[in-house]
Amino acid sequence: MSEKNLDFLFKPSSIAVVGASVHPEKISSIIIESLRNSSYEKIGSERCYPSVLSIGEEVDLAVYAIPAEGVAPSLLEADGRLKGAIVIGGGFGEAGEKGRVYEKEIREIVRKHGIRVVGPNCMGVFDTVSKLDTFFIPPDRIKRPGPGGLSIVSQSGSFAVTAMDELCAEGIGVARIVSYGNRADVNESDCLEFLAEDESTTAVALYIESVDDGRRFVEAASRCSAKKPVMAVKVGRRGAGATAALSHTGAITGRYEVYRAAFRKAGIIELEGYEEFIGACKAFGTQKVPAGNRVMIITDGGGMGVSIADACAAAGLEVPPLPAEAAEDLMEVFPPFFSVSNPMDLTGSATDDMYAEAVERALCASDYDIGIVAALWGPPGLTDALPALIAEKAAEAGKPVIICSPGGEFTRKKNALFRDLGLPVFPTPESAVRAAAALAGASAKKHVREG
Amino acid sequence: MSEKNLDFLFKPSSIAVVGASVHPEKISSIIIESLRNSSYEKIGSERCYPSVLSIGEEVDLAVYAIPAEGVAPSLLEADGRLKGAIVIGGGFGEAGEKGRVYEKEIREIVRKHGIRVVGPNCMGVFDTVSKLDTFFIPPDRIKRPGPGGLSIVSQSGSFAVTAMDELCAEGIGVARIVSYGNRADVNESDCLEFLAEDESTTAVALYIESVDDGRRFVEAASRCSAKKPVMAVKVGRRGAGATAALSHTGAITGRYEVYRAAFRKAGIIELEGYEEFIGACKAFGTQKVPAGNRVMIITDGGGMGVSIADACAAAGLEVPPLPAEAAEDLMEVFPPFFSVSNPMDLTGSATDDMYAEAVERALCASDYDIGIVAALWGPPGLTDALPALIAEKAAEAGKPVIICSPGGEFTRKKNALFRDLGLPVFPTPESAVRAAAALAGASAKKHVREG
Repeated sequence: MSEKNLDFLFKPSSIAVVGASVHPEKISSIIIESLRNSSYEKIGSERCYPSVLSIGEEVDLAVYAIPAEGVAPSLLEADGRLKGAIVIGGGFGEAGEKGRVYEKEIREIVRKHGIRVVGPNCMGVFDTVSKLDTFFIPPDRIKRPGPGGLSIVSQSGSFAVTAMDELCAEGIGVARIVSYGNRADVNESDCLEFLAEDESTTAVALYIESVDDGRRFVEAASRCSAKKPVMAVKVGRRGAGATAALSHTGAITGRYEVYRAAFRKAGIIELEGYEEFIGACKAFGTQKVPAGNRVMIITDGGGMGVSIADACAAAGLEVPPLPAEAAEDLMEVFPPFFSVSNPMDLTGSATDDMYAEAVERALCASDYDIGIVAALWGPPGLTDALPALIAEKAAEAGKPVIICSPGGEFTRKKNALFRDLGLPVFPTPESAVRAAAALAGASAKKHVREG
Repeated sequence: MSEKNLDFLFKPSSIAVVGASVHPEKISSIIIESLRNSSYEKIGSERCYPSVLSIGEEVDLAVYAIPAEGVAPSLLEADGRLKGAIVIGGGFGEAGEKGRVYEKEIREIVRKHGIRVVGPNCMGVFDTVSKLDTFFIPPDRIKRPGPGGLSIVSQSGSFAVTAMDELCAEGIGVARIVSYGNRADVNESDCLEFLAEDESTTAVALYIESVDDGRRFVEAASRCSAKKPVMAVKVGRRGAGATAALSHTGAITGRYEVYRAAFRKAGIIELEGYEEFIGACKAFGTQKVPAGNRVMIITDGGGMGVSIADACAAAGLEVPPLPAEAAEDLMEVFPPFFSVSNPMDLTGSATDDMYAEAVERALCASDYDIGIVAALWGPPGLTDALPALIAEKAAEAGKPVIICSPGGEFTRKKNALFRDLGLPVFPTPESAVRAAAALAGASAKKHVREG
């Protein structure tokens, strides 16, 4: 029995937690609690057994939350009854000579007996489609996002967990998140192959410290990026970062230039770090891929408009002048001291309706691909009705719109209104532009696919 | 009567608001309300007059909140009775031919009659030392920070206001904030000359679209940076950004390379945009200038450690290995699966006390200049006591410590604990490293000053 695909992982019909405990603070207890919270138990029953073997029937997926030395013997014992396992615990390849032996045993079992393994030294899977949740951090500390089209594949557990928690706070839903750690078996290419065909996934974001097999990775990523946007951050680039990756997941990181070339070949959008990763997830989790890279900037803060335009230029995004027709339209309805150009500055006299006019006549009617709206909340003419007006006009335009909204207490409260309407909000001109650049990157890839 | 220094602006003993109105939504009414809230009126009395002249005695500062055409006649009428004015309103050089005439009239009055003018087209001053507040945005929307050592000089009003509001939310105090807009008279060099000698100011942050007089700017900035850190962001760099700056404050922006060279010559720390500006303000507003650029990274998320190390390498910060002695010390007290190196990974088994040990034995005892602590809040061993422990050990070390704390709801709540203790908190590895790089930049400048 050898599983070719990852259905055991993403569509399991039976799950065993190995190492269940009566102590609520134990990792296994948190995982069982997570499984209960994610309502997995509603589609099955829950029982205790002394071993996987003693369950007496085939199990799709076993989640191991036991010390390193116990994993290989248990997998061997369960041979023939178990399709796959998630091995959560550390103490393997990342942790010295003994650990490397334990990890080698697991690799042998995978090779000889065909049991598929995710991990060791990982968080496993959080999945809003199958409702699987093996992330062993209590939900009072790390919130779980709702359903969405974004899937995340991460070598680092902390990176995946932190991103998940942050995306949840930003109102971004996800499809499937996989943390695969030391990668004794299931790797980034396996996941990409599954996600390429997965109808629940509309965009894929990767965090990698290294890849297992470069050629296979480029093939799998190319197949996936032909169907949906694929983006990746590669860390452990040089110096202390590269050394840290080695002790983190045992990854030999290799030269970054090689990865960059592979990304380009595979149609992967390159992201610079956690910051760009989260920004791109927020953009692709809420907005559609634009037709190109022409940005229209609308603001009520002249200085913010200048900053956004600068950041666009640095990121290779175009900020073309406002077409004469749209400018004439707007000058008829706007006071003479508004700056009717691109960036458009509605000044401290801005009102909700003027923003709506600006988005409609500049973004909708003209040849722009992406709107960046930097509505600073100072002007008294801006009210709680503003976000819905912008969202409505953005929907009419059928173009991605990104909100740039830096500020303090009042602003941060109001930003929730944008988020609730599915508009991604960024706290700085630069972060808004990075997200726009990621979207525009997908547009370039799309043109290659279609051209 | 010609004011050589800016005492009229930063230490006024009498203030007139020109254009006072009974309508509370008028700019003048908001300014009067701001002056009252900032408790300025407590040191004087408040009366209405039909004109500045009719006040019958000398006035240090008049704040003009009237239409553009009325400003020059009123200044002329007040000649001999008025040291200086802040002209808030727009409709001048940034707004076409007529406005350019009004602005030229003001420049003539400055030249011939010696009345100093801040603006037009600006927010004026928010000052926690003199308690002056002419920022005409109601405090329910834009909060005012408490006292601190940071002073901000900004050509853009929206930039200054937004930064102020955000710094307030981050718990960062300020000394003086000036928004000088179209710069008919008082410019960045005047402000730098004043702030160089100002004992209330410990660091200066500039936002400029252009400078008036390059030679004088370099001289003024050099004098200031010889005494305290001076940093600057220059926007309107190219393309749409440069055009937007022109219509924003009438600034001819010039080639960025020229500015960069001037910054280097003047000992100014160069900042890339709003994002770096806020980050540097948070760092300099809370931390001292480090001795060098050697960073120690402590985290409980391996992936975050790798990301921070990568960002340090990209920013030119050193991440030297942990000295053998400190490593041996820590390996005695830490579990074997902790990664005792730099970055240091305390894993999901981290506790408050282990963080305290790590900061004490790695940062305090060794030859590092800056600590970046990325305490992800997932591990159950981390409690509300953690921030105070880190702050205490950081104070013992006498070295700047920057907190990197990405995440969602739970994390964002806990981050307030760090802020309340005067530790700057950043939401991404990259933003934390940018702040560390700004601090390290000041250290390099300091060495030049002292060397």
